[in-house]
Amino acid sequence: MSSNRYAESEALLARARRVVPGGVYGHQSPRMVVGGAYPYFFARGDGCRVWDVDGNEYIDLMCSYGPIVLGHRHPAVEAAVRRQLDDGDCFNAPSRAWVELAETLVRITPFADWAAFAKNGSDVCTWAVTVAREYTGRRKVVRAAGAYHGAHAWCTPAPAGVTPEDTANVLSFPYNDLRALHDLVAAHRGDIAAIILSPFRHDAFHDQELPAEGFLPAVRALCDQAGIVFILDDVRAGFRLALGGSGERFGVQPDLACYAKALANGYPLSACVGREALKEAAERVYFTGSYFTSAVPMVAALACLAELEATDAIAHMDAMGLRLQRGMLQQAGSHSLAVTYSGPPALPFMSFVGDEKFARSRAFAAACAQGGVYLTPYHNWFISAAHREPDIDQILEITDGAFTAVRRLAA
Amino acid sequence: MSSNRYAESEALLARARRVVPGGVYGHQSPRMVVGGAYPYFFARGDGCRVWDVDGNEYIDLMCSYGPIVLGHRHPAVEAAVRRQLDDGDCFNAPSRAWVELAETLVRITPFADWAAFAKNGSDVCTWAVTVAREYTGRRKVVRAAGAYHGAHAWCTPAPAGVTPEDTANVLSFPYNDLRALHDLVAAHRGDIAAIILSPFRHDAFHDQELPAEGFLPAVRALCDQAGIVFILDDVRAGFRLALGGSGERFGVQPDLACYAKALANGYPLSACVGREALKEAAERVYFTGSYFTSAVPMVAALACLAELEATDAIAHMDAMGLRLQRGMLQQAGSHSLAVTYSGPPALPFMSFVGDEKFARSRAFAAACAQGGVYLTPYHNWFISAAHREPDIDQILEITDGAFTAVRRLAA
Repeated sequence: MSSNRYAESEALLARARRVVPGGVYGHQSPRMVVGGAYPYFFARGDGCRVWDVDGNEYIDLMCSYGPIVLGHRHPAVEAAVRRQLDDGDCFNAPSRAWVELAETLVRITPFADWAAFAKNGSDVCTWAVTVAREYTGRRKVVRAAGAYHGAHAWCTPAPAGVTPEDTANVLSFPYNDLRALHDLVAAHRGDIAAIILSPFRHDAFHDQELPAEGFLPAVRALCDQAGIVFILDDVRAGFRLALGGSGERFGVQPDLACYAKALANGYPLSACVGREALKEAAERVYFTGSYFTSAVPMVAALACLAELEATDAIAHMDAMGLRLQRGMLQQAGSHSLAVTYSGPPALPFMSFVGDEKFARSRAFAAACAQGGVYLTPYHNWFISAAHREPDIDQILEITDGAFTAVRRLAA
Repeated sequence: MSSNRYAESEALLARARRVVPGGVYGHQSPRMVVGGAYPYFFARGDGCRVWDVDGNEYIDLMCSYGPIVLGHRHPAVEAAVRRQLDDGDCFNAPSRAWVELAETLVRITPFADWAAFAKNGSDVCTWAVTVAREYTGRRKVVRAAGAYHGAHAWCTPAPAGVTPEDTANVLSFPYNDLRALHDLVAAHRGDIAAIILSPFRHDAFHDQELPAEGFLPAVRALCDQAGIVFILDDVRAGFRLALGGSGERFGVQPDLACYAKALANGYPLSACVGREALKEAAERVYFTGSYFTSAVPMVAALACLAELEATDAIAHMDAMGLRLQRGMLQQAGSHSLAVTYSGPPALPFMSFVGDEKFARSRAFAAACAQGGVYLTPYHNWFISAAHREPDIDQILEITDGAFTAVRRLAA
């Protein structure tokens, strides 16, 4: 592998390490990619393609870790953004788009009567828990062990700087384990404000796990019996599986749902939608940020949702995901490599069986990057509406070479 | 006052109330303005002027509650934004601007060796406290009573949904009360991770208070003696008083400083800058968000800081603020109205003496809105670099009428 291919990325990372803790932190940390065999900085995106700062082109299977659902620089979204920029973005109060976007989310979401907006997934997941506390007068929140609901201290994956008080009211159970959840609720009867779940298990560093048959409806019934608020954390999957939220895909309706990522095709926006019964509590829980009402991300979201609604984008992402899945499983088989391909086709993840330290996954991702496909070894991938059949087929040409590289590693 | 002047604002608010808790929440809530005499939704901004959805024009004295420091749609910032939009905004990893902005902040900030980026002021204030905990191995954080350091549960101004655990590690003392602070630190010796302060007292619903002579240096010395991390919350004032942070203006250098607002002239970005000693702890504290690395706000910040550095913008805001202050104090005197005009000239606040329920402030703000000046009765105002002498003089023509309205109210 040529060391020059990522020369500019590496030079920028060296500069970044001097002036930023870790150089790049969080889910985009260089720790999450493959040292020396991967770009660290990007310059441009268009449709399903991205270019790094060295000018290397990739078919993008990460979609900025989810936000890019229609493809980079989608014409309808960009046109709406530029129209709004002609008037401005950040004002003393919201723009008309604030109302129109809330009305749109209420219209397309089966259970929702209202919407609230913020910037990050963390903002809305933490706020939803707080609203549930205010509504129920209770303190505890139940989540699936290892699930990510934002970077805030109550659920951060890293313990650094976290106090015992930060996590004192957080209870965990194994995802899909209904008996464990029932036991937990019984043990804390009257104390549990909320159960927060993603629509399927998509923890980083793990194979994904779909909800077991009947699991989510049983959670819904348990919440109804015990007076618990059911929060669906749809930050990662929202709008890729169903227009009305991933609950629609899995046959369940929560009380509150959290969105970010795909909501505005990459523009900074998150949202929480909820039932009428929770609206007064929601009004009492303080929620604000300097840019919460900014107009540009909201017109981007209106354009993005309109495109998702008017086209077959969601079905198309599923179809393209299935095409990728079929192709990669066939290739793995032909290379005699045992893999686990998990999650919904539009948000897939693949791991190598027995590859506990992800050595094969890293080699696979590095070979993909070298060949011109961007994916990561530890976190699920994302299909966008801009991925067409020729793109998927081009990905598969490159992954075939990557499987060959992994087979050589194994040999 | 014509009821038709705000007809479209009121129609939109009625729609908003159906689909958003409170219609608009947080610092832009209609509760923060004057019912029936004020616009609730904005359509456009240009320089120091804004237009509401009814087409009414205002000279903007709120600057979107701080972010607009160069004026709405500043040409240099907008050009940088549009160039970046041609390439895209939100990628799988940062852009080159991530590095350049961190280097710029380190260069212009006397004490800072590194920078980290997020979206909201809340993000960076809470993270800074967590970094201080990780660095010191201690739990407690000290703040001034009533100070706002973001909407997160540990310091939200509203108790709804907040648990006792959320605030268990938060200690308060009266701003500027050095003896009380010393007593607090003595009582919790070895337990205090951080003292977080704004550079001056700018709590909403209060007159502003500048740091007493020697107060901030004494806090600095106390932190050094007791091994406490000194965090300057410069989210609201940052880049309006000094290019190197408001500590520069008040003769003190913290260990960590938090910015948002004026950093990117309205584009969604916040930052925490810090000393080398805290960098390793900062690297360990998990920090991420879907849009933390987005390029557009970072090129906006680079353009905004370059403009602040290359021009006399900061001195100009001070001069325009002084012109406004002199004019308004003279007017208040000539109307025989006792007022308190407080805070630095570029971030002023005016209240009426004895007006404990803000009735005069509300009447004043309503008359200003009617006349074409946008300011709020409960929260400090903001001057931008786009306010020129004729704008200030036009404001003063309108405030003269507003003082007349208040005098009639009093009579």
